[in-house]
Amino acid sequence: MRFFTRLDMPPEDAEIAADVLLSADLRGIDSHGIIRLNTYYGSRLRQKLINPCSPIQVIHETPTTLTLDGGNGVGQVVSYHAMRRCIEKAKQAGVAMVTVRNSNHYGIAGYYAMMALSHDMIGISYTNSQPLVAPTYGCRALLGTNPIAAAVPADKERPFVLDMATSIVPIGRITVFEKAGKLIPGGWGIDHTGQITTNPTAVLQGGALMPLGGSDLMRGYKGYGLAVLVDIFCGVLAGAAFASRVGNPHETQGPANVGHFFTAIRIDCFRPIAEFKRDMDELIRELKNSPKAIGQDRIYIAGEKEFETAERYTREGVPLLENVVESLQQAGNEIGVPFHYMPLGSIELTE
Amino acid sequence: MRFFTRLDMPPEDAEIAADVLLSADLRGIDSHGIIRLNTYYGSRLRQKLINPCSPIQVIHETPTTLTLDGGNGVGQVVSYHAMRRCIEKAKQAGVAMVTVRNSNHYGIAGYYAMMALSHDMIGISYTNSQPLVAPTYGCRALLGTNPIAAAVPADKERPFVLDMATSIVPIGRITVFEKAGKLIPGGWGIDHTGQITTNPTAVLQGGALMPLGGSDLMRGYKGYGLAVLVDIFCGVLAGAAFASRVGNPHETQGPANVGHFFTAIRIDCFRPIAEFKRDMDELIRELKNSPKAIGQDRIYIAGEKEFETAERYTREGVPLLENVVESLQQAGNEIGVPFHYMPLGSIELTE
Repeated sequence: MRFFTRLDMPPEDAEIAADVLLSADLRGIDSHGIIRLNTYYGSRLRQKLINPCSPIQVIHETPTTLTLDGGNGVGQVVSYHAMRRCIEKAKQAGVAMVTVRNSNHYGIAGYYAMMALSHDMIGISYTNSQPLVAPTYGCRALLGTNPIAAAVPADKERPFVLDMATSIVPIGRITVFEKAGKLIPGGWGIDHTGQITTNPTAVLQGGALMPLGGSDLMRGYKGYGLAVLVDIFCGVLAGAAFASRVGNPHETQGPANVGHFFTAIRIDCFRPIAEFKRDMDELIRELKNSPKAIGQDRIYIAGEKEFETAERYTREGVPLLENVVESLQQAGNEIGVPFHYMPLGSIELTE
Repeated sequence: MRFFTRLDMPPEDAEIAADVLLSADLRGIDSHGIIRLNTYYGSRLRQKLINPCSPIQVIHETPTTLTLDGGNGVGQVVSYHAMRRCIEKAKQAGVAMVTVRNSNHYGIAGYYAMMALSHDMIGISYTNSQPLVAPTYGCRALLGTNPIAAAVPADKERPFVLDMATSIVPIGRITVFEKAGKLIPGGWGIDHTGQITTNPTAVLQGGALMPLGGSDLMRGYKGYGLAVLVDIFCGVLAGAAFASRVGNPHETQGPANVGHFFTAIRIDCFRPIAEFKRDMDELIRELKNSPKAIGQDRIYIAGEKEFETAERYTREGVPLLENVVESLQQAGNEIGVPFHYMPLGSIELTE
């Protein structure tokens, strides 16, 4: 948080941005956590490429819809306020949708969807992002990893929280493998000619991620279609950048013009909330209690692993890769905010 | 159409149901077309397991939302009226969502989403369906192929029409392979122990389809998460059946209690429609004109192949597999409606 205030963000905004980043690490989504503090946000704030004051402006408003301009502000701050407005509007109207243009990378999509949970609403959050994914039959990275997040409350069971890139893996996963000097599984990415490669560097330099589904035979064009759909909502409908025009946090010298899309749905407009939550519990239990495939002993619900990880890390601390710690210390030294941490021992890389 | 009126459906309803089925064949989605006329609809109408009058009832209504009971009517008829109401409500409110409980199999999801196009709206359509897909790490078919459809208008380019099962392939694809006596590609389905199989019969009898993404390494849990999300909207939010409780059109002796979910979004609530359509054209062209992977000469937009197929079939006629023609002739003879067709020669099975 002090890192952000040192870079001219108001304290209440810095608190929001820090909370979104730390939530990612706490939920085990390390690729979207503090690893990006300096590379995605700090360096752009220092270069004045992001407006630390996040001056949000209303472009158009109806009782159910809202079009916001994020003023090239901090993605997390802009999105937090956009989703708050979305929830307020849904309280009145039953259903509300908010688009945001002229924003920046907003961290984990699920954070904003989950804001709806305590209001007994279903929350939805999409964002576009810098081009990293090739269309099916293409070889150029044109689409973002364009995540889809949806959060749905249950009764005694934990909420259903889907938070998924529409690519097979997010680019952060490839970066983690490159930093660890390991090969990626075949199918996650292609090289600059459009061929599948296991070399993370070939994906990162001139190649592209594959959309969910992968090859044509396994229906990768569905993942590609979902990525375009997210870009339609966040780019075209919001009036933000889309496809190759979305700025890259590492390279673009002007505003990134990232777009977001949020939805909040009052459950009790459709049926009594108690009935809904009872059925959510039943759905979750039926899935979890069903027979397991040979070699498996547990079936998960979307978000469940992340809730368990958060509970464990809250007790034991959040593990960070050694080179992440080093780069955070360096970034902290540069702007005069020391980075404190307690070593937990080395951690293993998972696929 | 005469097939449906002979089974006591009102003529205007029969016209709707026939139009949805024939649209599937015309768009090349043969697995969801007339191949199912008798097996999914005719046989259930004859056994009085579907109410041919489709008595729709309003359960709850607000300016932006509507909860309907389909009265165990014909899925296509109920859904057509639900989406019409959704569009009317969105005209007034900007955004509208409609859930339907107590319905039946509704054919291709894209049909209803596309109804929004001529109103300069984005249309969305989900349905749940009988259990065919296993959760990740499970081996029992618990979820439907639960499709997601979204239709978005463009200007000079064709609309974007995504219409995808959240499984890798729909069950109809497996049936087509079984009827043709061919093996399926490894990864589309699992046997009753949860192992991947190439035998279509092992998938159809006690096995299950795999969700989009397939294996864990390729993030099949995302497809599983999407399938559950669709079931939450169509089953839990609508107050319809969900997961294993959704009736199977071939077996269930009571109402199938299928649920649907529709959304209509007025584009001009967010930005001027002309700007939106201009940017849709630009997005589509950028994707299509981008460099191709080695061995590929064309990049497609969701729905494009189907529009082209429909144009070709409108000129040349719709090809049908020989055993489909035979079963249609037999069904027609049984209820006294002769099935006329003109042979076009044999057609090839694609993967």
